[in-house]
Amino acid sequence: MTRAELVNIIKQKQSFLCVGLDTDIEKLPEGLPKTVEGVIAFNKAIIEATHDLAAAYKINTAFYECLGVEGWKAMEETLKLIPADCFTIADAKRGDIGNTSKMYARAFLKNMDYHSITVAPYMGEDSVKPFMEYDDKWVILLALTSNAGSLDFQFLESDSKPLFNHVLEKSSQWGTPENLMYVVGATRGEMIGEVRKIVPDHFFLVPGVGKQGGSLEDVVNYGFNDDCGLLVNSSRGIIYASKGTDFAEKAREAAQELQKDMQKCLIDRNFR
Amino acid sequence: MTRAELVNIIKQKQSFLCVGLDTDIEKLPEGLPKTVEGVIAFNKAIIEATHDLAAAYKINTAFYECLGVEGWKAMEETLKLIPADCFTIADAKRGDIGNTSKMYARAFLKNMDYHSITVAPYMGEDSVKPFMEYDDKWVILLALTSNAGSLDFQFLESDSKPLFNHVLEKSSQWGTPENLMYVVGATRGEMIGEVRKIVPDHFFLVPGVGKQGGSLEDVVNYGFNDDCGLLVNSSRGIIYASKGTDFAEKAREAAQELQKDMQKCLIDRNFR
Repeated sequence: MTRAELVNIIKQKQSFLCVGLDTDIEKLPEGLPKTVEGVIAFNKAIIEATHDLAAAYKINTAFYECLGVEGWKAMEETLKLIPADCFTIADAKRGDIGNTSKMYARAFLKNMDYHSITVAPYMGEDSVKPFMEYDDKWVILLALTSNAGSLDFQFLESDSKPLFNHVLEKSSQWGTPENLMYVVGATRGEMIGEVRKIVPDHFFLVPGVGKQGGSLEDVVNYGFNDDCGLLVNSSRGIIYASKGTDFAEKAREAAQELQKDMQKCLIDRNFR
Repeated sequence: MTRAELVNIIKQKQSFLCVGLDTDIEKLPEGLPKTVEGVIAFNKAIIEATHDLAAAYKINTAFYECLGVEGWKAMEETLKLIPADCFTIADAKRGDIGNTSKMYARAFLKNMDYHSITVAPYMGEDSVKPFMEYDDKWVILLALTSNAGSLDFQFLESDSKPLFNHVLEKSSQWGTPENLMYVVGATRGEMIGEVRKIVPDHFFLVPGVGKQGGSLEDVVNYGFNDDCGLLVNSSRGIIYASKGTDFAEKAREAAQELQKDMQKCLIDRNFR
């Protein structure tokens, strides 16, 4: 998917919502079997209930890998259930030496045909660039994450700049705003503003709104750019909105609430 | 596998060789079909030809994921072919927020029952610790990698210490030498000495000997400790030693050459 196509989806749906399919087999709602078939049925119901409100879906590979071969199959089947007018993200946090990253890129961006994959930056340029070799596919590089452990290394200062700043500056030379996004945590809105100054044009995938904390208003105030430039993820807040048989309906309500807030932000900025 | 068991294997086999099963379906030798069955048959032959010479096997998940569901199955089957007297490594470079790392840990260390998994440090403590929750299982954390991209961030200095040094100091408080190893590249032997000063007791998984360059003698001179403390990996140099039908025989010869060099190092240090 090209940037223009993604921007168009955001305009059409008046939403920059990403729904995170971190589907935990143990947390499937009432009425669904705790099996791989249950996982697929759950994802199908969630996608059907939310796809007109979501610009993107993020599939967290860990939740499928922990189900083994059948889990991997469930991931592939889930991906196929996502309509064409949604951007797809393999939230896989991969990254290795060049010949290995090349294989991961082939797995996710070519064979499975995801639009994008999250990648960890620690191993540097040759671990990231193989993911940029496919047309209209995206790397979403970890820059500033929203978890407690982000404080361990991402803020270490070198030449008066924190590590995440170096990651942004250096990696923005490896790709372009047409094939490279960043994971930027929302736990503190002003940090998104700091990141926005360094990479004004790139899209950000923002976790940490909803259950992980972080306010949508702050994210937009600090992160919005001319092309919106934001995909804001919510996983648990949507997919586990209800533990009952009304889970899909409640997921839609939760997604709609976020979409409405997003629409307000977009209208305020005359983004249509 | 406990540290004592691993050390015992190294003493018994007089080898700290790790054979890397980075099996590329496109590079299968003459006589094997370029299919998933071919990959399994190849791995089986390599394991049978080398297991008495190898202390460990490292399965590079990327090479299996790029074959889809059937590839994941081939990975699981390959793991089951590895004899009990070999340490097993999922070279998966995973790492995510706590609830997600927990799922990866379950996938690799519990369900598949690998002895260890490689983990990327960028997201900090809560992304690493869930992998330490299983008894006698190991995290192998990226510290100093052997690829060109290692220069991008790993050497950035903060408080007069490079990033990899901070990773070592901080992470060594999260685990112990009984459940935490480090990936330490061998492209420059003296760097292994620098790392050894910071973490004197931990095992290192050393890539980069063989095709990636790096001398075994340097690795041992700089990295050896009282428990050996080293697993030295060779992938392509062993598994692709021949493209012909004699591939297993040639793989054994290549492994034996490395094992003999290792044995000499161990005898010199009276490690029996």
